[in-house]
Amino acid sequence: MDFEKINLLVNDKDYTTLKNELVKAQPYDIAEFIDSLEGKQALLIFRLLPKEVAVNVFAHLSKERQAELSEHISEKELADIVSDLYFADKIDFLEEMPANVVKKILKNTSAVERRLINQFLMYPEYSAGSLMTIEFVDLKKQMRVGDALEKIRRTAPDKETIYTCYVIDAERHLEGTVSLKDLVLAPVDKTLEEIMHKEPLFVKTHDDQEYIADIFKNYDLLAIPVVDNENRLVGIITIDDIVDVIEEENTEDFYKMAAVQPPDEEYINAGVLTLARKRIVWLLFLMVSASFTGYIIRHFEDALQSVVVLAAFIPMLMDTGGNAGAQASTMVIRSIVLGEIDFKDIFRVIWKEIRISFIVGIILSVLNFARIYFIERYPLPIALTVSVTLIFAIIIAKIIGGMLPILAKKLKLDPAIMASPLITTLVDALTLMIYFFFAITFIGINVS
Amino acid sequence: MDFEKINLLVNDKDYTTLKNELVKAQPYDIAEFIDSLEGKQALLIFRLLPKEVAVNVFAHLSKERQAELSEHISEKELADIVSDLYFADKIDFLEEMPANVVKKILKNTSAVERRLINQFLMYPEYSAGSLMTIEFVDLKKQMRVGDALEKIRRTAPDKETIYTCYVIDAERHLEGTVSLKDLVLAPVDKTLEEIMHKEPLFVKTHDDQEYIADIFKNYDLLAIPVVDNENRLVGIITIDDIVDVIEEENTEDFYKMAAVQPPDEEYINAGVLTLARKRIVWLLFLMVSASFTGYIIRHFEDALQSVVVLAAFIPMLMDTGGNAGAQASTMVIRSIVLGEIDFKDIFRVIWKEIRISFIVGIILSVLNFARIYFIERYPLPIALTVSVTLIFAIIIAKIIGGMLPILAKKLKLDPAIMASPLITTLVDALTLMIYFFFAITFIGINVS
Repeated sequence: MDFEKINLLVNDKDYTTLKNELVKAQPYDIAEFIDSLEGKQALLIFRLLPKEVAVNVFAHLSKERQAELSEHISEKELADIVSDLYFADKIDFLEEMPANVVKKILKNTSAVERRLINQFLMYPEYSAGSLMTIEFVDLKKQMRVGDALEKIRRTAPDKETIYTCYVIDAERHLEGTVSLKDLVLAPVDKTLEEIMHKEPLFVKTHDDQEYIADIFKNYDLLAIPVVDNENRLVGIITIDDIVDVIEEENTEDFYKMAAVQPPDEEYINAGVLTLARKRIVWLLFLMVSASFTGYIIRHFEDALQSVVVLAAFIPMLMDTGGNAGAQASTMVIRSIVLGEIDFKDIFRVIWKEIRISFIVGIILSVLNFARIYFIERYPLPIALTVSVTLIFAIIIAKIIGGMLPILAKKLKLDPAIMASPLITTLVDALTLMIYFFFAITFIGINVS
Repeated sequence: MDFEKINLLVNDKDYTTLKNELVKAQPYDIAEFIDSLEGKQALLIFRLLPKEVAVNVFAHLSKERQAELSEHISEKELADIVSDLYFADKIDFLEEMPANVVKKILKNTSAVERRLINQFLMYPEYSAGSLMTIEFVDLKKQMRVGDALEKIRRTAPDKETIYTCYVIDAERHLEGTVSLKDLVLAPVDKTLEEIMHKEPLFVKTHDDQEYIADIFKNYDLLAIPVVDNENRLVGIITIDDIVDVIEEENTEDFYKMAAVQPPDEEYINAGVLTLARKRIVWLLFLMVSASFTGYIIRHFEDALQSVVVLAAFIPMLMDTGGNAGAQASTMVIRSIVLGEIDFKDIFRVIWKEIRISFIVGIILSVLNFARIYFIERYPLPIALTVSVTLIFAIIIAKIIGGMLPILAKKLKLDPAIMASPLITTLVDALTLMIYFFFAITFIGINVS
């Protein structure tokens, strides 16, 4: 889409040409364009779109813009657009809208659909129920291929996907799936029972979205059926929604690993108070934990008083330990999430981290010793104290970083919380104790 | 798949029942099972599989197991399996195999395919060329719908997807796309020219996979055509490979944000030396940077000597500053990756972070003051020094954390490197300077 040209047409108020340009563009691009305009102009451009384009564009607009347009267009226009949205998009939209818009829409919806909408709005967030769509093709196993294709032809325009069709019995129990590819390839007079996949993968309405995304990844699916507690088919989930789920779950992990409780909105749209609240809980917890490190230092205050230069190396030791631990924990957390390791690998991981930390620890420690002793010309006991502490700090950091996420998983906690911030706090305390221990040993300080 | 039952059958050596159970299972599950066996048994079970199942299972096996099996099965068996793999899977496989296996396979490949394979192996890693498959349906625009469906029926079994078909001219230039849905819905005597999408989205062979994944996400695609420099259609990329790309890119970001250079293999399979190398570079860089913090402390050695308890608060201040910065940088990096913010939002982000850090900073600072002054009964000047430093540390950390990723993006660097470790090192130094400044001011220490 040629944004410059479109902008020119908007400025020239050449709405006929503009309309012709817009209908040629992708709905996603038009939505991006409308999102970038200010309110009045957005409304004007949106109204130029033919109805079938308008629906697709609407589904791609930002939540804020959707709400704004919903307030300004007539009830009739809004009802038209919403009634043409795919069911899953409709639910998403209704979940985000303020109460007055929802009311305005439900008023113009049939009683049957209203009941269905209310039922969907009740599925827990992040469950299969909240992700699924009801626009799928259902068939009966007695049908012949030719008749099935005929039914698909008749109903396809309203379906979100026709590439997998679902075979159900009279009570809507899922009996099998048949792909459009199978149908196109099969002789027209075969029955579906002969060609369908009889043990299809499926999920339940209350299954968690992360689990569902894993199934899609493992089995390379385009869609999966969703059944209720009585094994009746109630909806399907399609790959495009799963792609969004994958990014959502990753964002959540990134946030958790940076000690932020994931907010419900995008960062840039979230309010300052919300963001502050999502951040302060962990920050407070970590601040209090870090204060214990202070007690360790105070315990060794006399040692520090007699060789005050020891304080100068504390930040470097703590940072290096923290970073070494963060490296290990991040790699292990990610491996758990991707299903590459689980609890039975714990000793393999620890052994791996011990070997890595020896290599890394010794190299960094030697370089560090060289700097402190030869270049900065500190006394040997100080250079030794810092360098030996560094090796131990790295080894401990990597063992803890490798082990804690696996233990968290075993305890049914999210491994992502065992990331950098928590590991750093823990490693800091241990590093300091080791540091003072070696300081007393090598430098020979008297502690009271 | 019922692993217990299968394991029993393996132990009982009841290979007939085992074979019948296995062919009913999903290829992915069989592959998982074979991966869990030890070498000899894996080979035995793999050989039980009928050929068409064996190919699908092979594509899902771990690289290590693929290599191992390739060494042990006959050249004929290997050639059969490899020749039935989809082209993209074949390339993936060949890229990972040791030279002797590759040679063994290429020997049994036709000259035409060998040339094609060699050409594919030359596309840069992470490019469209390395992701694409050549098993797609191509059609001509003069064709009628009925003939097109006939051609699809004839060729479908060898194609990775038939849900989008590609319309090309005599020189193989991409002229449009037509979905199987469109074909099924259209009258059989229409020409493809009448129903095809004339301006299809496409990518070039050298486009980066991250860019391609974004297109899939934005436009909800199932497949995209790939053209060469002369706009000739050379392949297609399908959504299942893009799902893998999305996870790969996320893993890369997780690693970079934890100061690890992303390795080529899974963590659990990567060698200790490789992992040590991927981690030591950043660790060394950060260790040297953190050493500068030591110079700051030494500069204020006299201040510290006279009030040595000041040292006790350094870890808490550094950790809290580091965590506050990590929160901001992670949220901003993720927003950049997801395309929610770019350079023009820099002031909005800074302003947001300033407000958040005031709220968070003041609350934490007051709690901290209460603890130090009222509970631990330190003198007022010390409580003030620590608490005021804390506010400034948080504000500075959040501004730096919010700003640096956006600047990195502007400078065409990966924003992910501006994550926790680097921000922490920077914030540490600034926090210490502020700390000693306030210490001198409030406590009235004489500095030489």
